[in-house]
Amino acid sequence: MKIALDAMGGDFGPPNLVAGAVMALRDYKQISKLYLVGDSAKVENELRKHQCNDSRIEIVHSTQVVDMSDRAWTAVRRKKDSSISRAVDLIKRGDAEAVVSAGHTGAAVAASTIKLRTLPGIDRPGIAAVLPTETNVFVLIDAGANIDARPEHLLQYAFMGTVYSRHVLHYKNPTVGLVSLGDEDVKGTELTKEVFKMLRPSSLNFVGNIEGRHLFENPVEVVVCDGFVGNVILKTCESIAVAMFQWLKHELMRTRMRQVGAFLAKNAIGTIKDKTNYEEYGGSPLLGVNGICIIAHGASTPLAVKNALRVAAESIEQQVNPHIVEEIRRYHETTAPLEPALS
Amino acid sequence: MKIALDAMGGDFGPPNLVAGAVMALRDYKQISKLYLVGDSAKVENELRKHQCNDSRIEIVHSTQVVDMSDRAWTAVRRKKDSSISRAVDLIKRGDAEAVVSAGHTGAAVAASTIKLRTLPGIDRPGIAAVLPTETNVFVLIDAGANIDARPEHLLQYAFMGTVYSRHVLHYKNPTVGLVSLGDEDVKGTELTKEVFKMLRPSSLNFVGNIEGRHLFENPVEVVVCDGFVGNVILKTCESIAVAMFQWLKHELMRTRMRQVGAFLAKNAIGTIKDKTNYEEYGGSPLLGVNGICIIAHGASTPLAVKNALRVAAESIEQQVNPHIVEEIRRYHETTAPLEPALS
Repeated sequence: MKIALDAMGGDFGPPNLVAGAVMALRDYKQISKLYLVGDSAKVENELRKHQCNDSRIEIVHSTQVVDMSDRAWTAVRRKKDSSISRAVDLIKRGDAEAVVSAGHTGAAVAASTIKLRTLPGIDRPGIAAVLPTETNVFVLIDAGANIDARPEHLLQYAFMGTVYSRHVLHYKNPTVGLVSLGDEDVKGTELTKEVFKMLRPSSLNFVGNIEGRHLFENPVEVVVCDGFVGNVILKTCESIAVAMFQWLKHELMRTRMRQVGAFLAKNAIGTIKDKTNYEEYGGSPLLGVNGICIIAHGASTPLAVKNALRVAAESIEQQVNPHIVEEIRRYHETTAPLEPALS
Repeated sequence: MKIALDAMGGDFGPPNLVAGAVMALRDYKQISKLYLVGDSAKVENELRKHQCNDSRIEIVHSTQVVDMSDRAWTAVRRKKDSSISRAVDLIKRGDAEAVVSAGHTGAAVAASTIKLRTLPGIDRPGIAAVLPTETNVFVLIDAGANIDARPEHLLQYAFMGTVYSRHVLHYKNPTVGLVSLGDEDVKGTELTKEVFKMLRPSSLNFVGNIEGRHLFENPVEVVVCDGFVGNVILKTCESIAVAMFQWLKHELMRTRMRQVGAFLAKNAIGTIKDKTNYEEYGGSPLLGVNGICIIAHGASTPLAVKNALRVAAESIEQQVNPHIVEEIRRYHETTAPLEPALS
């Protein structure tokens, strides 16, 4: 497997990215080639720190970086030699099978969309983030790729999320919920009301509108929303989990008795902590582009980078794209005579 | 203090609402009159169950209820004799000083807006929900009143949230954050970018864009967003807290050693559980209407209803409305010569 890592993006730049790459190469023998794309002097410097001279590494020099304050589409058009653009070029040329970026999410989405194009039947890609509850694991799509979503985009997300849930998470008939303000059909924005009308007659296992509270109380397997809302949900969930464990830790340290209790119960707390730790998930696939692009956290630790590379390797194995194309083709075949607006 | 309770709204109807009212009357002597608005036979029946004949109760009969599937504004216009409309009428006539509703949020917003009107300088009311973190307490506004928000509405929410934070939560110079996709000015939707431009030169203590993760990692005191996003944040936060404690409980019960640990540490867990329990907060004020309207949860337990009535009583004492009017007046005075679009 050949993977390209944008070695410049992310809040912490080359140090965390290269450290994560070194960890991944140690653990994942299935990676046969790892392109580290970025300023070669900086990348080499980091590799030296880790005394790493793994022959599977190939440094691809690039002179530019998309800054977090850049506008995504403009940056991809103007900064031709940015690390993210060069990394995506490697897929386009067939040198790499997947790209991983912890940099500017919008730029990774724009570069993938412009260079790789979207899959047939897909208008805009969406980020599929996987989140755990006590009783299941769900796909949140879109977690932040597309903030100007139109109804058909959300419909496509529902299909892509279902394919992902079925083929990667192994749910046979995943339930799909649309994020809105209440269970009732009439609740929501113009956008969600339109999407509701399109999802109801579809072949998907659509359960209707869901509220934020249903994410954890009565979880569904696929949660559909626009990228702004999805990003807010994702970031809120992650930070609450972190904050609550922090808080719990401080409370547990306040008396000797609590400390003993914490020691005896530490496995219970650890189980949940690991399961809710975003670093373990590493990265989320950008579904809908004609290639594999994994979006990692901006604040990725080396462990998170390593796991994002694992997600990339798994995505190469799983190959969900043909299934997405097939599912969307079938939808258009069955609904072509009955356009949603006329049904 | 005279408070009107919509005794019909909410997922569980009169049983929970009347039970909460009885609890509130027992604990809050400052309530001199409690109007229970709804089907008098049902309300009387519930009061009998509690053997309550408190002379401060006055039942106001109404024949209609706004159903959760009704459209808010239509329901208020057509169902003239609904419990929420009649309850708001009591404020309009000067018989009550505050109204509490656990029913259809949109209908409570519509009834308050139509009958009480908005405050001078305020175009649309917003729900101000108070949420706890380990280190502070913040106001989330709008938590679900207005899903068609325009930039000026969000600016007004920032002012109202600041006034609330200062006068009710006692923060001297509350920090204000705008929910967006990243810290950078260029990130966000058309709506948030416009609001950013208006907030930056204002007199508010605006710290810029915040992401979902900042809510708990680097909390600000006032979190501004549109009602759709705010509602999703509120519901997600509440349900995660509940779900995580449930999950922790199950994990803690799995071995004898963990059970002992849980017993010793139970005060630590209890402290956080109480602080994050929405029932303790009860209800959120709808800021910006010319009167006091408290929005309680649809799924309110009797305890939550009781606490929503406490919030109503506190709101009557605190009287934030004159401060909101003053703050908005001052903003318009100082920015009149320099319209945001021209600055």
